[in-house]
Amino acid sequence: MLQTILIKNVLLNRIKPVTSKANGNTTNILIEGNRFKNLHAAPDTKADITIDGSDMAILPPFYNLHTHAAMDILRGYADDMPLFEWLNEHIWPFEAKLKPDDIYWGTRLAILEMIKSGTVFFNDMYFEIDETIRAVEEMGVRAAIGVTMMENHQLAVREEKFDLLRNWSDNDHRRVMLTTAPHAIYTCGEQLLRDCARLAAETNTHLHIHVSETEQEVTDCLKAHDTTPVRYLDRIGLLGPNVVAAHVVHVDKEEIQILKRRGVTVVHNPCSNMKLASGIFHFADMMAEGINVAMGTDGSSSNNNLDMREEMKMATMLAKVSTGDPTCLSAQTVLDWATVNGARAFGIDAGVIAEGKLADALLVSLNHERMVPCYNLTSNWVYATDSSCIDTVICDGRIIMQHRHVDGEEDIINEIRKRYK
Amino acid sequence: MLQTILIKNVLLNRIKPVTSKANGNTTNILIEGNRFKNLHAAPDTKADITIDGSDMAILPPFYNLHTHAAMDILRGYADDMPLFEWLNEHIWPFEAKLKPDDIYWGTRLAILEMIKSGTVFFNDMYFEIDETIRAVEEMGVRAAIGVTMMENHQLAVREEKFDLLRNWSDNDHRRVMLTTAPHAIYTCGEQLLRDCARLAAETNTHLHIHVSETEQEVTDCLKAHDTTPVRYLDRIGLLGPNVVAAHVVHVDKEEIQILKRRGVTVVHNPCSNMKLASGIFHFADMMAEGINVAMGTDGSSSNNNLDMREEMKMATMLAKVSTGDPTCLSAQTVLDWATVNGARAFGIDAGVIAEGKLADALLVSLNHERMVPCYNLTSNWVYATDSSCIDTVICDGRIIMQHRHVDGEEDIINEIRKRYK
Repeated sequence: MLQTILIKNVLLNRIKPVTSKANGNTTNILIEGNRFKNLHAAPDTKADITIDGSDMAILPPFYNLHTHAAMDILRGYADDMPLFEWLNEHIWPFEAKLKPDDIYWGTRLAILEMIKSGTVFFNDMYFEIDETIRAVEEMGVRAAIGVTMMENHQLAVREEKFDLLRNWSDNDHRRVMLTTAPHAIYTCGEQLLRDCARLAAETNTHLHIHVSETEQEVTDCLKAHDTTPVRYLDRIGLLGPNVVAAHVVHVDKEEIQILKRRGVTVVHNPCSNMKLASGIFHFADMMAEGINVAMGTDGSSSNNNLDMREEMKMATMLAKVSTGDPTCLSAQTVLDWATVNGARAFGIDAGVIAEGKLADALLVSLNHERMVPCYNLTSNWVYATDSSCIDTVICDGRIIMQHRHVDGEEDIINEIRKRYK
Repeated sequence: MLQTILIKNVLLNRIKPVTSKANGNTTNILIEGNRFKNLHAAPDTKADITIDGSDMAILPPFYNLHTHAAMDILRGYADDMPLFEWLNEHIWPFEAKLKPDDIYWGTRLAILEMIKSGTVFFNDMYFEIDETIRAVEEMGVRAAIGVTMMENHQLAVREEKFDLLRNWSDNDHRRVMLTTAPHAIYTCGEQLLRDCARLAAETNTHLHIHVSETEQEVTDCLKAHDTTPVRYLDRIGLLGPNVVAAHVVHVDKEEIQILKRRGVTVVHNPCSNMKLASGIFHFADMMAEGINVAMGTDGSSSNNNLDMREEMKMATMLAKVSTGDPTCLSAQTVLDWATVNGARAFGIDAGVIAEGKLADALLVSLNHERMVPCYNLTSNWVYATDSSCIDTVICDGRIIMQHRHVDGEEDIINEIRKRYK
């Protein structure tokens, strides 16, 4: 028998709230197993678990399309400094000392932070993926975990990583998928990039890569390959609908057309791009071409959190001020980027609250001081509130946070405080 | 006898945390009446109230230097539209229908929101100030409440407002001061501005005014007065150390020098300037001249919250990406802007945790998932966490929030939900 959950008297925001009146109605929502079974169930429907949804709204949760989750343990370790100094003198020396256990605890902290701020999926790129998989499976979220490839790995290590992907079976790991993750064009040579593209095709995995994050990357690519990063990647046959490209800040219009033609998903990381002064995302051109834009937080060492609500606000604020147009990049658009567009990129049948879809959802309090008055729920959610209005998080039909409590959170905090002082 | 509060075992961040090691030590802090009496009290010190500060840090609270508090009831009423349409078709028609009761409840909601996000003082400009005063006095915060002057008020109204300032006595209202608040150069004629400057001098009040918020304001000023807004205000003798100028986005270097020479405090409102696409604040020139820069949120209809923590992050993110320099505008600098610089502008002897200073403070949880690890408390506070890490708020030696609860908050939420649907 599948487990059932009935959420009673919850506000369902059916219509895109373009006017102040379209804020939906309360309903009873039945989840059966890991899917939404009925959005208009009878109030006396029997269920294994009943949740009182009064004074709450149900919203799609976040899908964070670019993270280095375990870097939560580097939060605030080095800020306000140039990228090169930051990496060479602080981040890399710290990372060189990390042990598998550090990755496990760092990822658990990251997942705790994500759940508390409404995220149920992350697309990760880091090391020691066994530890990451363990943390994800224990904590009940979804993840696409990158098998990170870099040129400085020995050939044996590379072969081991390739085999890992070849031998992986999603059937054994319901909420976890692996991705082929060549780090970037400046850390992977052309042969490795070609091998990764082939491997992703052979193993039917997504390919996660940093693309055109900084101006330096473009300048160096022009020197080395006589063309720009997107053109270079297209030339070697790497781009396709399985590709999730993070950042994509320094591109021209033709490159955006190439990305569209290949069906690439582009991940906007506004906090990271702003904090590291990488540049301003060409959101208007991306939208004009109809690119599937998703959102990500990047790692906590360059953000310094994994809060997708804050990321949405940052994205629309930056867009408005950088174009001088207060009407651009509406709250609804960034909400779509942070939810359904991210799920779509990975073929996760979720990101909207609809019958038959996977039961991923948030219950947010309508009694929170920043949720009132509520002329427009989407506006309040994107512009006004913060993560503290999230009461309950449901992933794959399981309650992973209720009344803001996550099982085992005290243990995670204690362990992190003990380890990193 | 003065009331005493002992905060035991709390982390006091004494040294500016420029390195990862300088995170202070725990101590016992004694408050007597409305001032910090002893930062290193014996643990067995007797006090009327004892707070367990274990696993918490004490931080200065926020001083929000530019608000239209009652506009909380317009939160999300109209977004993502051009300024003119926003004002003419939405904000002003709504405001025309407001009654004194609306101002009272709107301000109470705003103060609730401010307390919950760590703010103990706001510099306000709106209407029906009796209602605003009532809300401030009831809820235990501090405020400078503007007697707003605009050209379209009848002469009798103006005289009444002038008399209000002349007859005001701070002695009867400990935490409330009034300010002379000519709205802006485009809503007040030259005579009214001159009268306001004289009135502020006569009544020894601060003068709160919008200055150079938009490019339009500068263009119109050039047409009408053949000079730019700051030069115009200086020519008519309005600028002085009692002036708090909000926004100040569109100014040249010479105007910044004028502001410095006159001792004006400038208020940076990054969210509002970004959301309305007003422009980018010249933080570097302001800092180079040594201007007293403070921070504000503006009203909730153009933000859409009153969260000074979010405002700090927005300020430093915008500064870094707009200059291309990740080292500029450090976390410590924006924290100073949002705390001690704001208090200093109004001669409030607070904004730092020090013996003899007014007892305004926050206790923030060090067990919050975004406060760990804690290499640098200031970095975590500005970049990583959100308001949910604030456990306790103390203003003028009184506890106005404890364990995230504010007295009467349920009544405020219920009333707002009933009134504005």
